[in-house]
Amino acid sequence: MKQSQLFTKTRKNAPADEVARNAQLLIRAGYVHKEMAGVYAYLPLGLRVIENIKQIVREEMNAIGGQELAMTTLQPKEIWEKTDRWDDAKVDNWFKTKLANGTELGVGFTHEEPIVDVLRDYVSSYKDLPFSVYQIGPKFRNELRAKSGLLRGREFLMKDMYSFAKTQQEHEKIYEGTVQAYHKIYERLGLGDFTYRTYADGGIFTDKFSDEFQTLSDVGEDTIYVDETRKIAINKEIMTDENLEKLGLDKNALVEKRGVEVGNTFHLESKYTDALDVYFTDDQGQKQSIISGCYGIGISRLMGVIAEQFADEKGLVWPENITPFKVYLVQIGDTVKQARAVYKALQEKGITVLWDDRDVRPGEKFADGELIGLPHRVVVSEKLDGQVEYSSRTGNEKEVLTVEALLAKLGN
Amino acid sequence: MKQSQLFTKTRKNAPADEVARNAQLLIRAGYVHKEMAGVYAYLPLGLRVIENIKQIVREEMNAIGGQELAMTTLQPKEIWEKTDRWDDAKVDNWFKTKLANGTELGVGFTHEEPIVDVLRDYVSSYKDLPFSVYQIGPKFRNELRAKSGLLRGREFLMKDMYSFAKTQQEHEKIYEGTVQAYHKIYERLGLGDFTYRTYADGGIFTDKFSDEFQTLSDVGEDTIYVDETRKIAINKEIMTDENLEKLGLDKNALVEKRGVEVGNTFHLESKYTDALDVYFTDDQGQKQSIISGCYGIGISRLMGVIAEQFADEKGLVWPENITPFKVYLVQIGDTVKQARAVYKALQEKGITVLWDDRDVRPGEKFADGELIGLPHRVVVSEKLDGQVEYSSRTGNEKEVLTVEALLAKLGN
Repeated sequence: MKQSQLFTKTRKNAPADEVARNAQLLIRAGYVHKEMAGVYAYLPLGLRVIENIKQIVREEMNAIGGQELAMTTLQPKEIWEKTDRWDDAKVDNWFKTKLANGTELGVGFTHEEPIVDVLRDYVSSYKDLPFSVYQIGPKFRNELRAKSGLLRGREFLMKDMYSFAKTQQEHEKIYEGTVQAYHKIYERLGLGDFTYRTYADGGIFTDKFSDEFQTLSDVGEDTIYVDETRKIAINKEIMTDENLEKLGLDKNALVEKRGVEVGNTFHLESKYTDALDVYFTDDQGQKQSIISGCYGIGISRLMGVIAEQFADEKGLVWPENITPFKVYLVQIGDTVKQARAVYKALQEKGITVLWDDRDVRPGEKFADGELIGLPHRVVVSEKLDGQVEYSSRTGNEKEVLTVEALLAKLGN
Repeated sequence: MKQSQLFTKTRKNAPADEVARNAQLLIRAGYVHKEMAGVYAYLPLGLRVIENIKQIVREEMNAIGGQELAMTTLQPKEIWEKTDRWDDAKVDNWFKTKLANGTELGVGFTHEEPIVDVLRDYVSSYKDLPFSVYQIGPKFRNELRAKSGLLRGREFLMKDMYSFAKTQQEHEKIYEGTVQAYHKIYERLGLGDFTYRTYADGGIFTDKFSDEFQTLSDVGEDTIYVDETRKIAINKEIMTDENLEKLGLDKNALVEKRGVEVGNTFHLESKYTDALDVYFTDDQGQKQSIISGCYGIGISRLMGVIAEQFADEKGLVWPENITPFKVYLVQIGDTVKQARAVYKALQEKGITVLWDDRDVRPGEKFADGELIGLPHRVVVSEKLDGQVEYSSRTGNEKEVLTVEALLAKLGN
């Protein structure tokens, strides 16, 4: 798209009350708008990044048989009372609202209860199991403090998958398959090398550990201990000698790090299904509990983590797979015809382009391009004799190429 | 996908409190789950329909230069006070909630104010105008009654676009372009022949009419008068002799009909931009008002309208462009190998298939297929000597075809 027509522009400053670097950069570059602390709107550039992240997550969830659906934000009190998660004394971060007739409603902070309630209509026999369903949508959490930009939102986007199995063994297989899918997701997002499967507390209703996926980051809120050889970690919260032994971890091989939790997987046993009175009948005609798991990935948090992780002193740096556009095309001087030809040639190859066609100084274009952070920059200028100048966002090298050579370089 | 693995199953009955035919059918066929009156979750089949509708709307909004973004559900009170739309006495269908510190928040019922508030950061000069932005996302309205299924939701999906122009003339051009895009959308959705541009009340701050897009329907809540020759209509609410004359409509050519409003377009003049103190500087350096319009399409309502409109006594009937799968593939008897071959051949042609591989009686498969309402049925059976039986959901004819002939028939 032409930058002269893009709704947003870069800004010199983020709002004074924005203290998180990820949000400062995303606001300055025109990706998000801060509605209030912990609540951000996604502007056109930002929504493109969000959609790219969603698509990677969706593909990997589909690949392991997940079926996508969309639950509601408004929640009836009754199903949450059955699991004792309605009372504000039990769950301290509900947003609640009311119907016109005074009936209290919840504003969804998670969806175990409503998902299990839907199961009631569709699961009765062992033939109906196992399966997994997931959604990618908004969650609302009434956090007291929300100062970490997109890393901790009051309104944020999450992928949450729920699996339902006949036996513990069947559940474990789905659980492990999901963990492997998570590794693929972080790999595709460019976070694979510094994102660790991390043993963590499993909750009060299971003796199993849960798994967190922790991306190493100086701004991480969690302390983890990493075994870099085995590519595994343990959350400080559960690091006792007993647990280390149980997990076969050697204390001396562990290094303390800060991490941001970019995903988690939980064993739910039959806590929610039993509480909501949803069972199945096995092949012997016996009523049995359904074993479930839940699996979260913070979509908008990932945008913040990636912004924070890769940014340099000049601005954002997007990984190839989630960048809003691949190429920042800079038109310098009286070269609109040549720029349009390069723009079209790239698009015909399926390469997305943000074409800086604005009537501003070259220096302003280069600075904006660096702040916006697209991976590839292509300059069209009278001085280049019909060729173009290519550089990557992170490299220092500049190459002068023919358009054909450029297409060959960027095509795949 | 294989039907044995599909999360949902068909049901004999909808919940007793569900009185709307569209929701009854969508629930019985496994497309939606009723969370409470006016609040529906989209199950895998239903989400596929929603995504297909969204994609058609998105393509047509992009084609007229709309830029997609995503505003937030949680809304700060301040910006709504500036337009006098915060007070419950002024807007009677807000859902409201509170931050942990007691600060009141709104749960977005529309987004004029927050969109204009974002403009403040990006629009200052005449060079920044005109442009249009849109989103496709949830809206929340605290309706006293919600008995029309997906036709009137408390939580529902809407496409809302907002345009901003320098002059009334520039605005009118965008407005009329959007009206034409709307016609294309209803055409692609299969509703073109019975959806009318309908003059309606423009609101108190303009002397212009607004336009509603009304789909003729016996369950419509609106009364409209249609000029079938000119393909135009007028809402009963504004049908005065004076307005008829202004619009050049002949009372004698008008026929009374019931309609469901499936879209609307409004002239907002500079009401919201002025109220939020957002202006631009023209090429003479003078401060000027921004002229805006807003343009809505009810995405989930459209799913309800289409379900209601085309259904017959056997169940749902999806138009080709929004059906969750194109083909219902029925495997009868010991034909799993042949069915799999047909399934793969169709998919390789890019034709989506729901393969009924279940171990149930043929009659049950046929009945479920009719309730689910995919446009094309293909039967694989030992009696067909390697050929397949094709029928359309609405036709009575059955054809026996080779697989090649089937692919030729369904490919495009």
